[in-house]
Formats: sequence, C-alpha cells, structure tokens
Amino acid sequence: MRTIDLKKKHHKFEKMIPKNKILSLFKETRSDSEHICEPLQTEDYVVQPIVDVSPPKWHLGHTTWFFEEFLLDPYLPNYKRYHDSYAYVFNSYYESIGKRVVRTDRGNLSRPSVREIYEYRHHVTSNMIELIENHFNEEFAPILEIGIHHEKQHQELLLTDIKYILGNNPLQPKYKDFSNEQLIETEKKEFIKIESGIYNIGHDSEEFCYDNELPRHRVFLEPFSICSTLVTNREWIEFINSGGYSEVMLWHTEGWDWVKKNSITAPMYWHNNNGQWNNYLLEGNTTINPDAAVTHISYYEAFAFAQWKGMRLPTEFEWEAAQSHFNHGNRWEWTESAYLPYPNYKKPDGALGEYNGKFMVNQKVLRGSSIATPANHARPTYRNFFHAPLRWQFTSLRLAKSL
Amino acid sequence: MRTIDLKKKHHKFEKMIPKNKILSLFKETRSDSEHICEPLQTEDYVVQPIVDVSPPKWHLGHTTWFFEEFLLDPYLPNYKRYHDSYAYVFNSYYESIGKRVVRTDRGNLSRPSVREIYEYRHHVTSNMIELIENHFNEEFAPILEIGIHHEKQHQELLLTDIKYILGNNPLQPKYKDFSNEQLIETEKKEFIKIESGIYNIGHDSEEFCYDNELPRHRVFLEPFSICSTLVTNREWIEFINSGGYSEVMLWHTEGWDWVKKNSITAPMYWHNNNGQWNNYLLEGNTTINPDAAVTHISYYEAFAFAQWKGMRLPTEFEWEAAQSHFNHGNRWEWTESAYLPYPNYKKPDGALGEYNGKFMVNQKVLRGSSIATPANHARPTYRNFFHAPLRWQFTSLRLAKSL
Amino acid sequence: MRTIDLKKKHHKFEKMIPKNKILSLFKETRSDSEHICEPLQTEDYVVQPIVDVSPPKWHLGHTTWFFEEFLLDPYLPNYKRYHDSYAYVFNSYYESIGKRVVRTDRGNLSRPSVREIYEYRHHVTSNMIELIENHFNEEFAPILEIGIHHEKQHQELLLTDIKYILGNNPLQPKYKDFSNEQLIETEKKEFIKIESGIYNIGHDSEEFCYDNELPRHRVFLEPFSICSTLVTNREWIEFINSGGYSEVMLWHTEGWDWVKKNSITAPMYWHNNNGQWNNYLLEGNTTINPDAAVTHISYYEAFAFAQWKGMRLPTEFEWEAAQSHFNHGNRWEWTESAYLPYPNYKKPDGALGEYNGKFMVNQKVLRGSSIATPANHARPTYRNFFHAPLRWQFTSLRLAKSL
Amino acid sequence: MRTIDLKKKHHKFEKMIPKNKILSLFKETRSDSEHICEPLQTEDYVVQPIVDVSPPKWHLGHTTWFFEEFLLDPYLPNYKRYHDSYAYVFNSYYESIGKRVVRTDRGNLSRPSVREIYEYRHHVTSNMIELIENHFNEEFAPILEIGIHHEKQHQELLLTDIKYILGNNPLQPKYKDFSNEQLIETEKKEFIKIESGIYNIGHDSEEFCYDNELPRHRVFLEPFSICSTLVTNREWIEFINSGGYSEVMLWHTEGWDWVKKNSITAPMYWHNNNGQWNNYLLEGNTTINPDAAVTHISYYEAFAFAQWKGMRLPTEFEWEAAQSHFNHGNRWEWTESAYLPYPNYKKPDGALGEYNGKFMVNQKVLRGSSIATPANHARPTYRNFFHAPLRWQFTSLRLAKSL
Repeated sequence: MRTIDLKKKHHKFEKMIPKNKILSLFKETRSDSEHICEPLQTEDYVVQPIVDVSPPKWHLGHTTWFFEEFLLDPYLPNYKRYHDSYAYVFNSYYESIGKRVVRTDRGNLSRPSVREIYEYRHHVTSNMIELIENHFNEEFAPILEIGIHHEKQHQELLLTDIKYILGNNPLQPKYKDFSNEQLIETEKKEFIKIESGIYNIGHDSEEFCYDNELPRHRVFLEPFSICSTLVTNREWIEFINSGGYSEVMLWHTEGWDWVKKNSITAPMYWHNNNGQWNNYLLEGNTTINPDAAVTHISYYEAFAFAQWKGMRLPTEFEWEAAQSHFNHGNRWEWTESAYLPYPNYKKPDGALGEYNGKFMVNQKVLRGSSIATPANHARPTYRNFFHAPLRWQFTSLRLAKSL
Repeated sequence: MRTIDLKKKHHKFEKMIPKNKILSLFKETRSDSEHICEPLQTEDYVVQPIVDVSPPKWHLGHTTWFFEEFLLDPYLPNYKRYHDSYAYVFNSYYESIGKRVVRTDRGNLSRPSVREIYEYRHHVTSNMIELIENHFNEEFAPILEIGIHHEKQHQELLLTDIKYILGNNPLQPKYKDFSNEQLIETEKKEFIKIESGIYNIGHDSEEFCYDNELPRHRVFLEPFSICSTLVTNREWIEFINSGGYSEVMLWHTEGWDWVKKNSITAPMYWHNNNGQWNNYLLEGNTTINPDAAVTHISYYEAFAFAQWKGMRLPTEFEWEAAQSHFNHGNRWEWTESAYLPYPNYKKPDGALGEYNGKFMVNQKVLRGSSIATPANHARPTYRNFFHAPLRWQFTSLRLAKSL
Repeated sequence: MRTIDLKKKHHKFEKMIPKNKILSLFKETRSDSEHICEPLQTEDYVVQPIVDVSPPKWHLGHTTWFFEEFLLDPYLPNYKRYHDSYAYVFNSYYESIGKRVVRTDRGNLSRPSVREIYEYRHHVTSNMIELIENHFNEEFAPILEIGIHHEKQHQELLLTDIKYILGNNPLQPKYKDFSNEQLIETEKKEFIKIESGIYNIGHDSEEFCYDNELPRHRVFLEPFSICSTLVTNREWIEFINSGGYSEVMLWHTEGWDWVKKNSITAPMYWHNNNGQWNNYLLEGNTTINPDAAVTHISYYEAFAFAQWKGMRLPTEFEWEAAQSHFNHGNRWEWTESAYLPYPNYKKPDGALGEYNGKFMVNQKVLRGSSIATPANHARPTYRNFFHAPLRWQFTSLRLAKSL
Repeated sequence: MRTIDLKKKHHKFEKMIPKNKILSLFKETRSDSEHICEPLQTEDYVVQPIVDVSPPKWHLGHTTWFFEEFLLDPYLPNYKRYHDSYAYVFNSYYESIGKRVVRTDRGNLSRPSVREIYEYRHHVTSNMIELIENHFNEEFAPILEIGIHHEKQHQELLLTDIKYILGNNPLQPKYKDFSNEQLIETEKKEFIKIESGIYNIGHDSEEFCYDNELPRHRVFLEPFSICSTLVTNREWIEFINSGGYSEVMLWHTEGWDWVKKNSITAPMYWHNNNGQWNNYLLEGNTTINPDAAVTHISYYEAFAFAQWKGMRLPTEFEWEAAQSHFNHGNRWEWTESAYLPYPNYKKPDGALGEYNGKFMVNQKVLRGSSIATPANHARPTYRNFFHAPLRWQFTSLRLAKSL
C-alpha cells in the first residue's frame, strides 16, 4: 500500500467496465483526493517527517503522473508532457522507466509548488476526460482501471500521512471534524468456532481485484476460533499496566529490540499526561475512549498482546474463512501470515507489471480495511501488507486460538 | 540455528532414551565439537569478522555453559560453578537468566583463553558424566537431550563460522582435507509431479524433534512439480553472464537494495580472476566446479534466479511432501515459506522454553541439511531458518513450478 | 554563525548606542529579514534538505523568539507571551532555558504556518518598538544590540539556506535577479610581502563586536606573503583537470575520506554537462565564469588546492595583519587557523552568555565576509567559523606562503 | 601517534648517528617491542575491541614490514620478500604503495599467526643486521633512524592497546607487575608565573626530532601562570560529586553530545562499586588513589574541568615555554592548541613523506610523555596529537590561567 504504487494491480478482465461508468469513477476519484486535502494549509503538503510518510503534494503529483505516463503519453494523440522534469520528480519505484527522486528526499522539495501541482492535476484530468470520452478503447481500459485504484490506494495514504504530519507536530493541530474516527466495539465479544476443512481462498467475482488476491485456491484449515470484536483500548491499558512492554518473554527477539531501541511504551499517538492516557485523533488531542478498538499498533505489539492473553493472531486464511461471521471493523487487522504469493500466482506482463512480486518478502499481511480506505475499495479477499514495526496506519488486532 | 541457542528444542517425550545411550551420545557430542576445532590455530578461535559469525572458542564455552547452567547447577549435588564470570561471558540470549556480553563484542574478548575454555569444557564434561552415571533421573533427561542437540546445532555453526574466518582472510588458509565439501549433481535432472491433496506435515515419530516441527497437521497442496536436483554452478554462471545481478525486474525491492548496497555480483566465496571464477573451499581456493550445486547464496539470489528461470522456490510444505522423491542434497535449500508457527503450536514451559517462538518473524525456512550438519541431526521435518540476506551457511536452491 | 545563535555576542559597552539609532537599526533589521524572503513561495519556507540548513520560516520565528524571550518577557510591563509552544518550537540551542525541537526535526514541522509566523513577527516587532520607545533603559540595551546582530547573522543564513533549498531542487528555480552574486577578480594578482614582527590582533574600536574578537592581544608573525586576489574558477578547473580530486597526497586523511565517501569532484553547485561546467547561481543555472572567485568549497578542498600550488592558507592572524592591503572579496576565506579563544578570553555572564566558548573545538576560522552578509555586519576582526567539510556558505580561498 | 605511522618523521640530518650506535639502537628497539608483549597470551595478540586499538600482533608485523618495505627491499642486495601478502596485511595508511587491509578489519584476521609474525620479525631483524653491518650507507641511514622511531611510537601504542584489551575484558586480567603506573603528585602545587614576550618554539638541537617540531620559530605569549602539578583523582572526584558531568554550561557543544551519547560519568577505566571508585590498572582492578594524577580523560573532559575551576588549559606554546619549571609528569597533557603546522613547515619529499601534514586538522596537541613512552623518545618540543574524545592514552591535565 504505502509506498507502493501498482504493487497490486492486474485482475481478471472478464467483465469490461462500461465507458460511462469508468469515466464517472475516474472523475470521482480525482475529486476525492483533492477533497481529502481541503483542510490542509499549504505547508502541510510539503513535509515528510519519516521516510514512510510522503508529502501530500507528492501523492497528488504522483497519482497524476501515473495517468500521464501510462495513458496520456501512449494513447492520447498529440499529447505533450506537461513538464519535462515531472516524470523524474513524481516517479516512485519504477526503475525501468527512469531514475527517480530518492524516497527520503521527497520532503526536501519545495518545488513544484502546491499550486503548480494542482494545475498539473487539472491539466491531466482534463486530458484524461478527453481521452476517455473520445478515444476510449479496450487496450487501455484495464490500465485506466488500475490507475484509478492506484489513486484510491494513495487516498488512504494521504489520510494516514496527514494524521502523522499533524499528530507529530508539537501544536497538535486539528485536521477537521471527524467524529467517526474511533471504532467503538459494541458487538458482543465472543469466540466464533470454525470447523476444520478445505476452504477456497482468493478472489472469485468479476469485480476488480489485485493480482495478489489470485488465483483462488484451496487451503486446509485446522479448527480454530476467532473473536467477534477487536481488542479495545481498555484491554490495552490493562496490558500496559501489567507490564506488557517490559516483559521480554512476550515478544519476538526483534520486537523486543524495537521496543528497547525506540522506548516504546504505548501505541502510536498515545501520550500519558500525569497518569491519564490521551491520544491524538484527527479532531485533535483527547482522552482515550476505553471502548474503542485499539489502533496504531505494530505487528510486534499485536503479537505480544496475544501472547499475554494466551492466544494468537489469526492467519490471513483463517480470517478470510471466518470474516462473514463478524463486522469488518474499519481497522486493518494484523494477521500472523507473511505476505507471500498464492499458489500459481502469475506476474503480469509489461511495464505495469514490472514489480509485481517485489514486495513479497519480510512483510505481514493485514486484512479488513480502515476508515481511511476509500468506499468500495476493500473486499474480503483484499491483502494489505506492511512491515512489522509500522504503526501509522489504522492498525488493530483480533484474537484467535487453535482448538 | 545461527545465533540461536535453544530456539528449537522441546519435543514429545513419548520415548525416553536409555541412560547408556544418552551417555554415549553425550560423550560423542562433546568430543565431536573439539574434533571440528582440531585443525585450528589458537588465533582462529578468537575472531568474529561479522556479527553472525561467533568465535569458535565462544561456541565451545557457550555449549559448555548450557550444561553447567541447566544441569550441573540444579541437579548435581554440591556442584560449584567453575568460574563466577563464565555465565556472563558465555550466555547467549537468555535475558531472563542474566545480562550477557553483547553479541557484537564476542570477538573482542581475548580471555578466557582457549586453553582455559578447554579446561572448563573438560571439567564440565567430567561432572556431567558423573551426573548421568550416578544421578540420572527422568526430570532432567529431556533437558540433557536438548543440551546435546543444542551442542550439535553449534557444531554446524562452528564449521560455517570457521569457513568464514578462514575464507575471508587474505591468506586464504586451508582448513583441512575436505574432499566431499562440494555436492556434485549426478542425478538426472527432471521435474517430479506432485498431485494436489491434503498432506500431513510435521514430525510424527518417537524420535527427537524440535517444538517448531510440531504439531503434525494437515496442509492442502495445489499440484506442482519440483526438480530432482539442485541448481548447479554452471547454471549460476549462466545467470551471471546473462546479467542476472543487474536486472532489477528479477529481484524483490529489498533484495535489489541489498545487491546495490553490498555490490553483490556472485555467491559468497566466489572470486573472479581474469574472467575465471574461483571459490574458496575448506581445502583452499580453487576453480569452480560447474557440476557442483551452487552454494552460499542468499534467499534474495535464490528468488531472483528462479524468476529468471520462470519458476519459483518450493514452499516448505511442498518440499516436505515431495522430499521422498529426491536425495537430500547436503545443502540447506531456501524455500518460499516464511518461518511461522504451525497450527496449534505450543510454547514449552519454563526457563528453557523462554523464547520459543521468538524468532518467528521475518525469516525464511530452509529445508534439508548440510555437510556441516552433524550426522543424524537433520530429518525430513526439520525446519531451519535464516534471514533473507545471509549466505555463510551451505545454502542452495531447488526449483519448483505450479502446474 | 550557521546554527548558532548568540555564539558570538557580547562586546565592550564603552559607547552606548543612542535610542533613536538603535530603534531605527532594529526596524531596519526586522524588515531586512522579511525582504530576503519576499521572492519565496510558501513551500520554500518549510523544507530542511540537510541538517545544516534550517527552514526559512524557522529563522523568521527563531529570531523573533529571541526578542520575546530576552527582552519582552523580562522588560515589557504586562507582556504576555504570544503562544505557549513557540518557545519550544523556536528555541535553538539554549538548553538552560528549556528543551528544544531537535535540530533535525525542523523541516518536519508544517505548523506554525508561514502566515502565523509573520503574525508572530509583527506582534513582537510592535511590542519591541513599544519597549524601545517607552521603556528604554541601559540594562537591556546591550541585549537588544545583541538581538539585532543575532538576527543579522540569521539573515546571512537565510540567504545561504535559500540557495541550498532552491539549488538542490531538480527544477533549479531562480531566486531573483542577483547580478552581483559572482565576484569577478579584476585586481592584479600579486603576492604582498608582510614583515615579521609583533602584530596587534582583535577588536579595538568602540563599535560592536563579538566576544570572540576580544581581547586585543599581541601575536608574533614570521614573514610571509599573501595573494592580492582569490583563487578563480579558471584555476579551479585546472586543479580538477590535473586530477586534484584523485591525488591522495594533496589531502588530509579525513579530507580524503570525505572526498571518497561523498564522491566529491567539484565545488558545490557545480554540474558537468558533457564536459562543460555549469553552476547554480541565485539567478539560476548558468555556465561557469572562469574569472569569478571559486565559491562553495570546503576547507579540505581549499587545503588540497593550496598543496597542489605548493602554497598554503593564511592563518587568521596573517589575514588580519595583511587585510588592509587587499579588497575584501565578499567571500568567506578559509584560514589555516582553528577556532580557539584569544588569550585572556572572558566568557560573558548570565543566560545569554551560556555557551560562549562552546563551539571552540574542531572548527576552522573564516575571515572576510560574503555577499550574504548584512551591510556593516562584518569587520576586519570578525571571526566566522565552520566545520571543515561544509560548503553551502559563500566560501573561497586566498593563497599565502612563508618567506 | 596512534594509527599513524610515519606521521612525524623527518628531521634535520645535521649529525649522522654512527653505525655502531644505530645498530645497537635498532637491536634494542626490536627487542623492546617483544619484551612488551611477553606477558600476553596468544589470544591477546589478536583482538581489536575498538577501531583505535590495533591487535598487538598487527603492531609487531607492521613495524617489521616498515623495515622490509623501505630498507631491505631497496637496499639489501638480492633480498626477497618474506611473504607476498604481508605488504598488504601489514601496510597501514600508505595508499601510494598499495591497497591496505581496512583499519576496522585488523581484528578479524587470525592469520598470519603470532608465531608466524615472530618468525617474520626475526627474519627481518637478521637481514636488517646484515644490512647495517655490511651495507651501511648515508642514503638509507635517515630512513633507518625513522624506522626505529616509528617502532618506538608503536611501542607506546602496544602498551596502551594492551591495557585497553585487558581492561575492557570482563575478567579484568592483570598485565604484569607494574607498580609505577600511577603518578603520585608529590610536588607542591603552585602556579608559576610566566612573563609576556617572544619565545622560541620548536626543535633546536642536533638530536632526532619529527618534522612537525620544525622549524624553530618565534611566538609571542601574553602573561600567564601554569600549575606545577597535574590535576589529581581527588580533585576529579570533587568534580564528579559537584555534578560536573551533568552541567551543560561547562562543556563544548560537541563535548556535551559526546557525554550524553556515551553516558560518560567518569574517566575511562573507572568503575563505581557501591559508591567506591575503582580503576583498572595494569596490575589489575584497584581502588582509586586520590593523590595520583587523573588519567585517561578526553580533551572534552579536560576542558570542562578547567571551566569548572574557572581556569583553562595551556596552549602548547605556553607549555613549551614553561616546561623547564615543572617535572614532566609521565602523562600526556592535553593543551588548548589545535594540531597545525608551524610557520614555514616543510613537507618532506618522497614516499616516506607522503602524508606529512595529513593529520593536521581536527586534532588537539598533547605535550609531555607517558609511562608508555619509550625511554628517550620524548622531549620538550615533542608534539603528540589525538582527537578530542579519545581516552585510551595516558592522558591528563595541567591547569593554566591568563594574568
């Protein structure tokens, strides 16, 4: 997700989306990205406080460059690139296309300015509309669909990156009214039993999916049970108070090293103020709601918490097999599964497919979706993935146990 | 394995090994470690050229400390520790027992001397024989068995670490006559088809195994085929000559970063001498044998090679299901599987079990065994694991493909 | 200079500046800082591409905080601080006053916004005018004078930091018309002989100076000669073409390590375009003018060049003794002298004097001034200082030799 | 000194040492190095616990290589190098002669073994005797003299490095009986006044000196006084107890960063044992003697202590001008002076002179000598130099003040 453009992309093109529908999806997507940025001041668009967080203006430019690079340039007659250097500035990881600005340098670039990037966006959006309306064809339709989903992925990052930028500022500025950020766990907490057996895992409809959700295949699951609700802040405070962050036996060795090196004592955005836990939300700093699902935890913390409970995280296959039994929580849920290809996974061809499997090492799968996920962008087979220590996404934890 | 004492240890104690058998196994194991070190000069025992390689004298002391800490001290009447500071010097990762010499500092310690460590070894060995002969009981028998297997694991590291110490010395000294180091692939190379179905995976006999091989459980495998032989040096030279190390599209993103940062152009111990590839073997520097299995490669390299071939690595489950169809190659074979707990994996109790699952993140599983593995120490269900960039073990690659 | 607020500050208060004169100096100084920033876009105020370069908005806020902290807060009746958190955000190195934003984090702070900082400036400026006009007294007058010079120091940094921010942007944007940036060496180049003897070194008038220019004292100089002009770009290209950057014998060991580690092959802002040397100037990218004084070189490079010429850099004492014989070049000239206290140097008392000598280790003295130096801010006894590898100031080189 | 072979070497050859005298000096020097190592166990020769400390066997080999490289190879008829690879293994910093083992890798090399290095030494020593006895000429005599002094410099490092190796081992082994290691300050403590005036500084006799002591030149000194004795452990404990290590205003900024980063609370080799200060000496661990001169302090600490006393360190010129008034303390005394060339300093020609001025940046001068300095190796004009944070030499502090 994160830094990771095009990483999950191709799909089965069994059903072509009609031109009108895709045009309206395109316009809506372009507009949504800009809507997310509306509350920002110009300066908020510029900074990159950690390497994982990109400047909002970079997201706006990069998603635009994608359409210019892979659609306007090859398919729109007589199209001339908007600016010679933008491919260099806004390229991400596509080494086969050209050298790129080093990821850690994105926050050092004051130019192009925010205004210039919006002008670039509008130029490309207009030309794309021209392309779709007057030059639509089946060859580029799937690339267009990917470009739209690519931008939707970046919309999620836009919001999580904005939260990081504002939430780590000493002034703790409010983003905007956002009353539903917290997920209050109102469901009855119970453990749902799942029988052993062969389950079909992976995408199965004619709708869009990414290549890493394919192919659908069979997995045998031993019997297990899985909790109907996510772990809450109340439970997490108990974990803290019981010394969970200082009990080495609960942690992976590298998780423990991470805790020590970074002096971790609570989830990200939590602050202890004279014994009272506060957390930064998009509406600003506030006291912790104990009934809300714990959020902004690393995989290491999720694992240690589960150990402390005498349980474990579900695998991504268990999660997918069980998901119809609980509400999705608007949180990304860490699983025990490593991010790996499915049996008979096929790498897509061509420039877009350049790096399909290139992230499939040393990352953990997350399932579900988050409040930052664009509407209709997630689905039960969706596989998100991040490195074990990362916490700036809306990550949470659902417990499971073997039977 | 590596740095990792006790990491795989508990087992089902369905069958107790008889006292005489375990005494002879103990004596033989103690003697084997010293035999491995016989060709060394005193100085070779001391150095730690990289953090993953421990000084041979540390291995000798650490395996000895294990028996003193977990057996002599609690079980031998009136036993007095040999030296106050040795628990500190030779402890490895057991934080619950006491602070330890930082791993990176092992090579900075000239004392205790090699002679003193051998005296310590002989003292502990004698007392252990006394303990086994005259105080044997069922309580400590499983710990003793683990201690023996623990030392056998370190025997493998002793040899790989010695190879690193000598093979990275500018004088390239010979270890000793070791004519069978290379694995010449004489088998007919063919792809063995394996049907889809439910396979039982994990340890199943009354013999010793580590906890990570348990419990035996069911896995569904989609159909695949797997090569009867390992990739050879000849094939690897083709990969090099075709530009495999400079073709970004073959690599994981983090593998590519590793290649660039470390200027990797060939397997470890390979040197190009005016166009001729040589490699350092335990007998000294020699020209590459093209028919030998490629050795000392990282997971990243194994993956890139398989991509180049249009194939993939097997998962550890595929490997285990298929292994009866090919000879084990005396190489550790990288698999595509991440090192994770089996369903219903149980963490052993007590001090020994302290860190059982603590390495189960961000490592890859290797299957097979190596020429450095002590006789009878490996088995088809044995799960070795290392981080993706590591190469100083006798690692190799077997190709697979989905059907 | 650089990061270094108040580092050179106290002076002999033999002559009190009249209130009206200081008021007008204050107003002019405040206005000058804002004038320097006029050509910037909002985004340019925010970024910190290297640790030595601070965001322009931080300079604007920090110099303002100084007046609030040391003058308004203690001396203006009923003054209330503008914002609770600004002391934290804009404090620099005054650890005795409170914790501060880590220097490397300045570029991560999007808030306070540029507009808010200008409002803060105007608020503080108005209150300062009120303080000076209606509450002027001799107690705070010297602190006020220091505050003004402190801001003048930051004006120099503002310009050099802006050049870095724009000059390292891939779009290489122009700052503004700045036709006199380059120093064309039109003087006749000759070596001026200076006799041996005792010279008086250090500040000697009733005008303002920093504590590090005091006390005036005697230094014996052996005979030497010093060049009437600075080294030119033409000479530097000869140095490059003769292999100066690859001849180890010309360099200090740590200079050589710096060259190798950073792949240095030319002064900062130089780019080789198919054999033609260009450099980035405040007016934008242009071809090198061979008659201009070489600029943006490190001490290491200055030393190596002098070695190549068979000469050396002058000491700061030689420079001061000889300076009346040549025009100051509007460049900071590296000297061979380390930055050390003069005999009988006195550390000023009180909070302002907190760290007076604290930079007097491992830095080299530069003499002269630069085009970025505010008018009347430099003088022949002025001692600037930077670490040997730094190049983003307008640094240059004047040759000397012993006789 | 330290890592720094040949760094101070050429001298005025006004008086040629007679052949017999230099032969006996050569033999004695070769023998002395081996005598220093006699108490070592083989393992002690091998390790390099920090980059500044070289393995003793490397010192033995490197000083030997020097004679082979610069004397036997060019001057002894038919001499054949002892081993092809030794020039590579034992070369230090002479990049013009060939690539060298990276300094940080010296402790990773178990071969050549200690025995092999002694054999190499004896081979070279014998051949050198042959050269001196039968082929002596004026061309190589000065190189021979430098080679001898070069080895004497390494003798000092041998002892300080051995102390580091043993003193940082958890077993704290004794080196040997060494009753005079501590310097008990029995002199009456008083401040000696020195008048202002022109002083001649630098070497002035026909005896050997290094190039950095030349040429003798004039320096004007303002009046000052300097203490007859060194600072004692008693005074240092007062400094500690008064909070000297936690009072930021006493320290240079970079000194303070060093204190914080390394958690420095006392001189090197000091350990606080329940409120009692111990220190490791060559005889082993013992309680602090309060009357002994404080030893193993960094320049940063020396400066902070002097600030705390309201005094300062002497410059090297003050020290040289005053030195006849006090006993040299067998400690290296930090001065305030940076290590810089004297006026009209000449770089010696040829391969030996390769890097003469190459260390003259960012180091501080130390004057005096230490208990590790070979007899007759130091003199009042001798300039030693180290980086400000280094402490493993026998460094101490003499206070001074301006009048």
